Amino acid sequence: MVNKKIKRPFFIFNPKSFLYGEELLELAKVADEQAALYPEISVMVTAPFADLATVSAATTHITVTAQHMDGIVPGRGMGHVLPESLKSAGVGATFLNHAEQPMQLNELVAAVDRAKDLGILTIVCADSLEEAKAIASLGPDVILCEPTELIGTGQTSDDSYIEATNAAIRDIDDSISIMQAAGISTADDVYRTIKLGADGTGCTSGITKADHPKQMLIDMIEAVVRASKSE
Amino acid sequence: MVNKKIKRPFFIFNPKSFLYGEELLELAKVADEQAALYPEISVMVTAPFADLATVSAATTHITVTAQHMDGIVPGRGMGHVLPESLKSAGVGATFLNHAEQPMQLNELVAAVDRAKDLGILTIVCADSLEEAKAIASLGPDVILCEPTELIGTGQTSDDSYIEATNAAIRDIDDSISIMQAAGISTADDVYRTIKLGADGTGCTSGITKADHPKQMLIDMIEAVVRASKSE
Amino acid sequence: MVNKKIKRPFFIFNPKSFLYGEELLELAKVADEQAALYPEISVMVTAPFADLATVSAATTHITVTAQHMDGIVPGRGMGHVLPESLKSAGVGATFLNHAEQPMQLNELVAAVDRAKDLGILTIVCADSLEEAKAIASLGPDVILCEPTELIGTGQTSDDSYIEATNAAIRDIDDSISIMQAAGISTADDVYRTIKLGADGTGCTSGITKADHPKQMLIDMIEAVVRASKSE
Amino acid sequence: MVNKKIKRPFFIFNPKSFLYGEELLELAKVADEQAALYPEISVMVTAPFADLATVSAATTHITVTAQHMDGIVPGRGMGHVLPESLKSAGVGATFLNHAEQPMQLNELVAAVDRAKDLGILTIVCADSLEEAKAIASLGPDVILCEPTELIGTGQTSDDSYIEATNAAIRDIDDSISIMQAAGISTADDVYRTIKLGADGTGCTSGITKADHPKQMLIDMIEAVVRASKSE
Repeated sequence: MVNKKIKRPFFIFNPKSFLYGEELLELAKVADEQAALYPEISVMVTAPFADLATVSAATTHITVTAQHMDGIVPGRGMGHVLPESLKSAGVGATFLNHAEQPMQLNELVAAVDRAKDLGILTIVCADSLEEAKAIASLGPDVILCEPTELIGTGQTSDDSYIEATNAAIRDIDDSISIMQAAGISTADDVYRTIKLGADGTGCTSGITKADHPKQMLIDMIEAVVRASKSE
Repeated sequence: MVNKKIKRPFFIFNPKSFLYGEELLELAKVADEQAALYPEISVMVTAPFADLATVSAATTHITVTAQHMDGIVPGRGMGHVLPESLKSAGVGATFLNHAEQPMQLNELVAAVDRAKDLGILTIVCADSLEEAKAIASLGPDVILCEPTELIGTGQTSDDSYIEATNAAIRDIDDSISIMQAAGISTADDVYRTIKLGADGTGCTSGITKADHPKQMLIDMIEAVVRASKSE
Repeated sequence: MVNKKIKRPFFIFNPKSFLYGEELLELAKVADEQAALYPEISVMVTAPFADLATVSAATTHITVTAQHMDGIVPGRGMGHVLPESLKSAGVGATFLNHAEQPMQLNELVAAVDRAKDLGILTIVCADSLEEAKAIASLGPDVILCEPTELIGTGQTSDDSYIEATNAAIRDIDDSISIMQAAGISTADDVYRTIKLGADGTGCTSGITKADHPKQMLIDMIEAVVRASKSE
Repeated sequence: MVNKKIKRPFFIFNPKSFLYGEELLELAKVADEQAALYPEISVMVTAPFADLATVSAATTHITVTAQHMDGIVPGRGMGHVLPESLKSAGVGATFLNHAEQPMQLNELVAAVDRAKDLGILTIVCADSLEEAKAIASLGPDVILCEPTELIGTGQTSDDSYIEATNAAIRDIDDSISIMQAAGISTADDVYRTIKLGADGTGCTSGITKADHPKQMLIDMIEAVVRASKSE
């Protein structure tokens, strides 16, 4: 099911290209059960493009999320990620400008526009405070502040970085949700990040490489709920 | 269903990003019926990434074909087209290096390698004879010779171009199938192209913009069969 | 000679890759003579990378301007445009994010930063109002508002487009100079554009393809001066 | 001075973006003196784009070499590296497809063609044997076989890799010179590489980061001469 608005706080399970097919589907179903239990938060799950329709068909409560989308309209665009195809497959949100798929500024502008046309939520990545400010002027739903050098290292952003980016983005447009996700590898990291003022967080290898990925996914979603309630 | 080997001649319906969802699915089913009628040829249908699983689930006789694939292995690769995800969605072939999504040489080498690993057929595009020769050394299943300036114009490649590229590629590796598809807009164009010695052909807007797309698709597939029998 | 601050109004002769070597040098010298005559405006001349040092050595009054620059630091960066190399060759300004060389947002942020480090003026291109706003947040010296579809057509931006972009950018940061240059092909276009409120303008093929390029260059620079004085 | 044909063996001092301005010029002059002493080998020196004209003007015996070139013709091409501009600045050779600036296959084909038009020698980089074979079909002057994972590590390619690539390329076109340069950091590495059958070699940080860069440059050029004579 597609959520029209993102709820705060939110959690994104982003297995990138680590998972696909059956293994991904099982974890997506776990996330879906948790999302049913906690309707007060948004739970989002990304999938490789060709897995999106299957994940969407098997779930109800999560927001199925693409890893990237191109700002094209139906037409030629061979080999690009067509927004209408995502929408038709049940996709409700998309990442844009991830450090592993950085976008030209003109393409990013076009992609945010197309997402708004179709009611697809946008999570736009920034790897510096300056980049975050430029992105804020485009009015995305979420900005993910993730210093490139920390991705996949298991190191979290330090508190001052998180607070500075939060303040700078809210100063430009406080309707934009802020996601902080650098180096989240435990449920405690999740809890700490939400308590520090992030609207949402997420995780990749902290879940996919955990000894018990399903349990870690459950623990992290519960940590979001817990942090939210204690506010 | 995934065909392990491409049959000669073959026909590729390549609606690019013109179609998605229900409209694409209906035409794919028509192609599937034709493919069942003519098991002596290969019928391939492309789809935007997020439509591939649905098209695959609804068809049996066509080779479901991606518009592009990245030569990555499962892992990070956020926003890229994961070969294992395509395979798991029922994809049997992929275009690579299309003029609308040109690839770096190192990425093309990696993508052809990954496709071979997974048994995914490769249709690699060349927009000049020199490019076709370099591609031939990589051992793809099909080379599509399509002078960039003719794409979407309704003009076909002239006979001498077709014959020169056929000869040059067969000289390097005659196990590579040759596709000629510039400006195919009628069933007669299809017939003529196969008779001129192409192993296969295909069509985009000649079908999607036809007055009766389903009938045009049927007519073109029948033209391939007819050209093949009269050899 | 490198100007540290851009003067308003300014004129940029941007022959892109149409000119190089002797032919470019002659026109750059004409521009230099005009710049000496009118010290109240900035006259800038672009050159292909390998012509920059020669143009710089032969001129005194113009700001020698690169067509692009990469936001790298001295080190590996094989094949990229090193800021320090430009600076050392006498370059005083650079275009960034031109429609023919669009930049990733993270690269644009880095390039603007490096230019500030070295005292190189930045002229950053935007092909839509939304893009212009995002760029304004990076604090470049000049924003060039040039709807991509008009480049090289001889059509000028209409007055309402010019006024809307001027207002939007000045609203964010009124220290940023605004350049409007779509379809400038006569001295009258230059005059009109400055009178409409642009801080600067420029020209490519209106000069390089003029019957008398040197005279056209002189006429356009004089039109800037005239428009400025009549304010 | 521009050499029309590359001599075997050859040595390329490739300081990438580590050096520019005066420091680069001094080393280029040292290389030029060595090139005058040993006319039986080719000595090539790369420079960042904006340094090429200055290096060329100050030297006579080396082949001034660009780090990259785009396969464009004079015209728009804003921000790209114009072949005619390089030629006019005295450039006699160019690297293409370096791992730090990988090229699309169609662009590489165009760049090799333009270089042949203008008499600019091409050194095309390959990071795998398969890539080297595809490149060989384009008929460049030199292929540089450099496994990406070894660049800048100080580790040399092992002997079997060097011999396998030499054999594969010579099998396709034995007029192509073969350069092996992975991890060259001492004059002994240079000697060994030429003795193993490479037509040429080169060095970046082994020289720029040496305690005495000028002496290391001299030692390496002499090692090429020595290896050549002992054959």
